[in-house]
Amino acid sequence: MPSSRGIRPADHSFGVFSPPGAAPRAGAVEGDAVLDLAALAAAGLIDGLDGAFTAPVLNPFMALGPAAWAATRDALDALRGDPRADAHRHDLDGVALRMPFAVADFADFYASEHHAANLGRILRPGDEPLLPNWRRLPVGYHGRAGTVVVSGTDVVRPCGQYLGEDGEPAFGPSRRLDIELELGFVVGVPSAHGDRVPVERALEHIFGVVLLNDWSARDLQAWEYRPLGPFLGKSFATSVSAWVTPLETLRRTARGPQEPAPLPYLAEAPWGLDVALAVELNGERIAATNARELYWSPAQMIAHLTANGASLRTGDLLGSGTISGPGEDERGSLIELGWNGATRSFLADGDEVVLRGAGLGEVRAHILPAR
Amino acid sequence: MPSSRGIRPADHSFGVFSPPGAAPRAGAVEGDAVLDLAALAAAGLIDGLDGAFTAPVLNPFMALGPAAWAATRDALDALRGDPRADAHRHDLDGVALRMPFAVADFADFYASEHHAANLGRILRPGDEPLLPNWRRLPVGYHGRAGTVVVSGTDVVRPCGQYLGEDGEPAFGPSRRLDIELELGFVVGVPSAHGDRVPVERALEHIFGVVLLNDWSARDLQAWEYRPLGPFLGKSFATSVSAWVTPLETLRRTARGPQEPAPLPYLAEAPWGLDVALAVELNGERIAATNARELYWSPAQMIAHLTANGASLRTGDLLGSGTISGPGEDERGSLIELGWNGATRSFLADGDEVVLRGAGLGEVRAHILPAR
Repeated sequence: MPSSRGIRPADHSFGVFSPPGAAPRAGAVEGDAVLDLAALAAAGLIDGLDGAFTAPVLNPFMALGPAAWAATRDALDALRGDPRADAHRHDLDGVALRMPFAVADFADFYASEHHAANLGRILRPGDEPLLPNWRRLPVGYHGRAGTVVVSGTDVVRPCGQYLGEDGEPAFGPSRRLDIELELGFVVGVPSAHGDRVPVERALEHIFGVVLLNDWSARDLQAWEYRPLGPFLGKSFATSVSAWVTPLETLRRTARGPQEPAPLPYLAEAPWGLDVALAVELNGERIAATNARELYWSPAQMIAHLTANGASLRTGDLLGSGTISGPGEDERGSLIELGWNGATRSFLADGDEVVLRGAGLGEVRAHILPAR
Repeated sequence: MPSSRGIRPADHSFGVFSPPGAAPRAGAVEGDAVLDLAALAAAGLIDGLDGAFTAPVLNPFMALGPAAWAATRDALDALRGDPRADAHRHDLDGVALRMPFAVADFADFYASEHHAANLGRILRPGDEPLLPNWRRLPVGYHGRAGTVVVSGTDVVRPCGQYLGEDGEPAFGPSRRLDIELELGFVVGVPSAHGDRVPVERALEHIFGVVLLNDWSARDLQAWEYRPLGPFLGKSFATSVSAWVTPLETLRRTARGPQEPAPLPYLAEAPWGLDVALAVELNGERIAATNARELYWSPAQMIAHLTANGASLRTGDLLGSGTISGPGEDERGSLIELGWNGATRSFLADGDEVVLRGAGLGEVRAHILPAR
C-alpha cells in the first residue's frame, strides 16, 4: 500500500468540485471519475434531495442522515455503466477540488497509544510514558475550525513566540515545524444540546472519514501549552483530504480488550478501522502505519465528547490524534520519527508532504517560507 | 454599580430579537427600548445595508466594518425623539432575545493576573503562582463554539468522568460546577489566512463586547486536562449576554507598564476597559470587580491569536478569562471565592447566577439537575 489504485479514494466518497465554468457542487468518486451529483439530479437520474448537491459544501447532504446517504450510494450503484450518466462524469485528476464541508467545531483527540507513549518518553523522560487519565478516557481538546484547509493548499511556516537557546522568549518563524498523520471523522447528523449520544448509537452521526494533517509548530507549542493546552502551535493550519469517505466502505477489524475496562458510557466491543497509512516527504516514504493502531474508536470519541451534554453539529470534525504503530518507521510525526530532532530534522521550506490512506486518497501540501 | 440604570446595556448595543409574530431581526438598545432596525430600514429611516438587519444573526452587519457600524449609530442618534421611529420601538424588557451572533471560533484567554495567580496557589501550592509563560504571552485555548448560548438559557448540570475519593475514575453529575466571570470580544471584520493583525490595528476587527459566563466543571477539568488542556469541563455550555456593546461606548483606562516588556508584536501603551462587574448568586451579590484588572488587552489577544497566520472570521468570540481583582470579594469564580471548596461550595441545582457589567447588561441562567 498504496498502489496507484490505493491512492484513489473509495468509490462513492463525496467531495465538492467546480466543473469548468460552473459553480461548485457535490461530486462522488467512481473509479477514475467524478460524478457530478448536481447534474445527475438535474437530469432526473438521482434524487436531488431538495438541492443538497448544488450547495458549495456537503453540509446539507451530510445533515440528512444515514438513510439518505445510503440511498444516494445505491442510486449511484444502479447508474454504473448507464450511458445517460456519461455526460456527467469528469476525470478525477482534472477537476478543481474544494474544501468539502464547512467545519463547525474541530476537536482533536490523542487516541494512539504508541504516539502518546512516544511523546511521553520524549517530553517527560523518566516518568510513566502515559498520564493516568490516558487509558480512562479519550483525551482531547478543541482546535481552530477556521483554519482547516483542503489538500493542495500551501502551508505558510508560522511565526510565533518560543523559548530561545538563551532561555528568553523570542519571536520568529517556527524552527520545529511538524506533521501529524491522523484520521478525521466528519459529523453529519447533529445531536441536541443537553443530550448524550450513547456509544452504540454514535456511528449513526458520522458521515465519513478524511485524512488529516494536524500541522504542529513544536517550539511554539512547548512554550505556550501550560496549563491550557495547544493553541498557536496548532491553529495556523490543519489540512484534510478533499474526499469524505463513507465509514461503511472502510474495513473494520476487532481489537483486543481495553485494559482497564472503560466506564460503561465508553464500553463497546473493541474495534478499529483497517486503513493502511503512509507519510511521504519530498517523494520518499518515511513512515507507514495503520489506523487500527488507534486505542479509542470514533464511537468512543463521540460518546465522550457528548457525555457532558455538548451537542454535535453538522460539520463537526473529530481528529483521531497522530497515529503511530510500534515500529520506528511506523510513527506519524517527525518529532517521533527523529526523536525530537536527534536523528531527523523538522520540515524545511519547500518541502512537500503527502499523507496517503487506503480508500481515503491523499492530503498534500507544500511548505512556504514564513511571511 | 450596578444601579438599575447600570443594568441596562449601553445605548446602541446591538442584539437580535423577535417582535410578536414576526421573524427575528437586528435591534439596538435606546434607553428602555429596543429599536427595530429591520423595520427602520424598511421605513427608509436608516440605511438597510443590503438587508443586514433582517438576518437572524448580527453577522452580516458585523462583517461590514467600523465605518458601517459608526454610520448606523450616527443614524440612530439622528433619530432620537423622531416620532417616525416610535412605531418601531419595543419595550426592552418585553422582547424575546436570541443568540445575537453565530459563533465562528471561540478562543478563551487567561488574562487576569489575580485569577491566574489564585488558580496557581490553589492547584500548585508551594510553586510560583504564575507559570513562566504567563507574563510573556496571552495564554489561551480554543473552546466549543457550538455550545455558546444566550443569557436566559438554562444550564443543565453536566455529567462526566472525574476521579472519585477512592482514586478511581467515576462517571456522574459534576459535583464542582463553577462560574467564570469574563468579557467576550466579538470579531466583526475577518482577516486573511496567513496574515498577522498588528496590535495597533487589532481593535478595527472588534465589533463589540459581551459579558460571558464560562461555566466550568472543576472535577471533570482536573481529571482530563493533562496534557491538552480543558475540554469537557468547559464544553457543555458558555453563556453570553444578549447585547453586543460597541467597544467605543466603554470607557478605557491607562494601566501601568507590563513587566517584563512584551515582545514587539504585543507592545502597546497599556490600557484596560473600565467596566464595573458583579456576580450575583440567588439574588445575593457575592463578588464585584472591574475589567480594568485584565493584564492583557483585547488588542494583544488578537495580535497574539493571529501571530501565526491564523485567520479571524466574522463571529469569532474571544473570552478574556475569568476576571478577578486583588480582594477576597473581587474574585470571578467560586473556586477562588471558596478557595477550592474550603469556605464556599460550588453551584447547587436550582441556583440562579447573574453576571452584571456596567454598560453590558447581564448574563443570567438557572442550573437544572443533571439528566
